Amino acid sequence: ADGELIRWRKLVLATGSRPIVPPIAGVDLPGVYTVQKDVGYLNRLLEAVAQAQDVVVIGGGLIGLELADELRKRGRRVTVVEILRRCLELVYDDDLTERAEQELARLGINVRTGARVTAIEGDGKVKAVRLDTGEQLRADLVVLSVGAQPNVALAESAGLCLVDGGIWVDRYLRTSNPDVFAAGDCAAKTSYLTGMPAATRLASTATAEARVAGANLFQLRREFPGVVGVYSTKIGDLAMGLAGLGERAASAVGLSYVVGTAEAPDRHPASMPGAKLLKVKLVFTRHSGQLIGGQAYGGDSVGELINLIAVMVQRRMTAEDIATFQMGTHPALTASPVTYQLSNAAEMALVVLQG
Amino acid sequence: ADGELIRWRKLVLATGSRPIVPPIAGVDLPGVYTVQKDVGYLNRLLEAVAQAQDVVVIGGGLIGLELADELRKRGRRVTVVEILRRCLELVYDDDLTERAEQELARLGINVRTGARVTAIEGDGKVKAVRLDTGEQLRADLVVLSVGAQPNVALAESAGLCLVDGGIWVDRYLRTSNPDVFAAGDCAAKTSYLTGMPAATRLASTATAEARVAGANLFQLRREFPGVVGVYSTKIGDLAMGLAGLGERAASAVGLSYVVGTAEAPDRHPASMPGAKLLKVKLVFTRHSGQLIGGQAYGGDSVGELINLIAVMVQRRMTAEDIATFQMGTHPALTASPVTYQLSNAAEMALVVLQG
Repeated sequence: ADGELIRWRKLVLATGSRPIVPPIAGVDLPGVYTVQKDVGYLNRLLEAVAQAQDVVVIGGGLIGLELADELRKRGRRVTVVEILRRCLELVYDDDLTERAEQELARLGINVRTGARVTAIEGDGKVKAVRLDTGEQLRADLVVLSVGAQPNVALAESAGLCLVDGGIWVDRYLRTSNPDVFAAGDCAAKTSYLTGMPAATRLASTATAEARVAGANLFQLRREFPGVVGVYSTKIGDLAMGLAGLGERAASAVGLSYVVGTAEAPDRHPASMPGAKLLKVKLVFTRHSGQLIGGQAYGGDSVGELINLIAVMVQRRMTAEDIATFQMGTHPALTASPVTYQLSNAAEMALVVLQG
Repeated sequence: ADGELIRWRKLVLATGSRPIVPPIAGVDLPGVYTVQKDVGYLNRLLEAVAQAQDVVVIGGGLIGLELADELRKRGRRVTVVEILRRCLELVYDDDLTERAEQELARLGINVRTGARVTAIEGDGKVKAVRLDTGEQLRADLVVLSVGAQPNVALAESAGLCLVDGGIWVDRYLRTSNPDVFAAGDCAAKTSYLTGMPAATRLASTATAEARVAGANLFQLRREFPGVVGVYSTKIGDLAMGLAGLGERAASAVGLSYVVGTAEAPDRHPASMPGAKLLKVKLVFTRHSGQLIGGQAYGGDSVGELINLIAVMVQRRMTAEDIATFQMGTHPALTASPVTYQLSNAAEMALVVLQG
C-alpha cells in the first residue's frame, strides 16, 4: 500500500475472510459491530460492551454463541437471534443443538430461533432490533455474527482463478499460478469425505493447510486431502464437538448411514468429583461400515476426544476397528473400560451393520 | 466349591490376578495389607487407615502412588519405598517419572527410591519398616503394592497350557482347549508392537480381550492383535499417560528410534483459566518412521489425548501422517492449532527422520 516493492519467487496468500454484513436496514448505526480479527476494533467493541446493558447478537452459530456466553459472564442481558430452526444448525445435528439450547437457557441467555431481523432501529445510535414477527428487542449494542466470506480481493485483481467464492487451489495448495499458494479462509475447499465444496472456516483447518503449503513451496512434498472439519466449542459448562459428517450432512449428500450412540459419565465411578455425562454418536456408511463422522458432548475431555474421532475418520476406521481398538482408562480421567463411549457406540452400530 | 455342577459348552476363564506378597520378614504381621479387588478386604483396609498416622507403601508403581495420593488426601503421613531407581520406572520414561516425583514432593509424600525393604518390624502389630540402609521408617500401617501375578490355579489343575506364568491363548483367545477361552490378567499376553511376552495387567486390556473372546465363543469373528498397553494415571493435579513403547522399552528390544517432543499450554492463550502445560513425546522407528509409542503429561485432557496416541499407534501412522492430520482446537479445551502438541512433536521427529 505504501509503494514499497517486495520481490518474490514464491508467494503465499493468507488473506483470510471478513465478516458478512447482511443488508438489513440500520446496519450502519453506531452501536452495531461485527466480530473481526483486529485488536483495535475488538478493543472498541469491549468499550461498547462496558457501556451496554442489553445486547442482541444476530446469528446463533459458534461465534455468536461463544460471544453471547462471554457477554453473559460480564453481566450483560443477552438475546441471540437465529434465522434457522435451531442455533448451531449448520454445524451440529439436532441432539447437540438441543443440548446447546438447554445450556443457553440454563445460563439465562435469551434465544429466538426461526426469527429474522427486519431492521436495526435507533436515532443516531442503536436502540432496538425489530423481528419479522413485529416484535421489538431492546438493544444498546448489536453484534452481527452471520458468517464470513473469503477475502479474495487481491487474488481476483491478480487474475487468479476463483471457485465457490474462494481462491481455487490444487491438492498441493497451489493457485492457478503455480508459484502462488493459498491457505486458510481465503482458499476454496473440498470435503475430505465427499469431495464436494466445503465452506469450512476454522483456524485448525487453516493451520493444517499451512503445514502443507509451507512444505510445498520449493518442492511438492505434501498433499492436502480435503477438509475433515473438526468443530469444538464450549458454552457455559458444556463442551461439544463434531468431526467429519453429521447425520444431516450425510443425508444431504445422499449417503446411507448407520449410527451408534453411547453415553456414560466421563469419570468412574459416577460418584467421582467432577464427573459429567459424556455422550458420543458415531456415523458409519452402510455400504462400507467406515466411520465418516462423530459428535460428542460432555466435559472438557471432549476437546481431545473429538480429535480421537477425527483421526479415526481420517484413517477410515470401520465400526469393527473402533469396537476393538485398545484404549486406556482411569477413574479420574475417563469412562470405565466397560462403558467407554467410543467402543460402545461402535458396538451399537455393529448390531445394525451386521444385523 | 459347594459341589453344584454347572454344565457348559463354552467356558471363559476370567480369574484375574492376585497381589504378589514378597518374602520379607514380618510380612504376616497385623497391619500389613495388599491391594485386592475385594470389597470386604478393602473395607478392613479403610478401617485400618482410619486408625493409622504413619503409612508406608512398599512399591512405587501406579497402584502404590495412587494409593499414596489417596492416603495423603485423608491426612496420613505417607512414605513410598521403591526398589528401582525411580517410581513408575517400569511404566514410564524418565521425563515422566521425574515429573511424577516432583509432584509427589509437592504433595508432601515421602519417597525413598533405590531402597529395599529388609524387614517389617513390630510386636504383635506393625511398628516400622527397615530399609537395607539400616534406616527404620515408622509405620502403623504398611501396604504392599509390588505387582500382581496371574491367577492360574484352576487352569493349571484343568491341564491347560501355561506360558510366562499366564494361561496360553491363541489370537482368538482360546486356550489349549478350544472350548475354553481366557481373558484378562489370567491370560498370557504378547506385545502388539514387538510380538514378545508382555506383563500387562490393565482393566482396559482385560476389557479389550473380553470384547474379542465374547465375540468368538461360537464362531471366530475377532482377533486380538496383541497388547498395545495404555497406562494413564493421575497423581495430585498431574495427569500422565503412555501408549505403546517408551524409549526405554524400545531400547530394550533393540529398536532404533527417533523421538519428537512438543509442549504448550492445554488452553489458548496461556492466560485462559485452568491452563496447564501439556507435554507430548512421540517415539517412531527409524527404519519405517512409524509411531510405536507416545507419552504425555499435563491436565485431565491427557486421559483422551493418550487414547488419541494409542489409536495412532494401532493404525501404524507415520510422523508425516501425524504432522498433517487434521484436528480441532478451542481456546477453552486444547492448545492452539499452531502449538498443538501432537502435530509439532511429529514435525520435530520429521526433522530427524528426513534430515
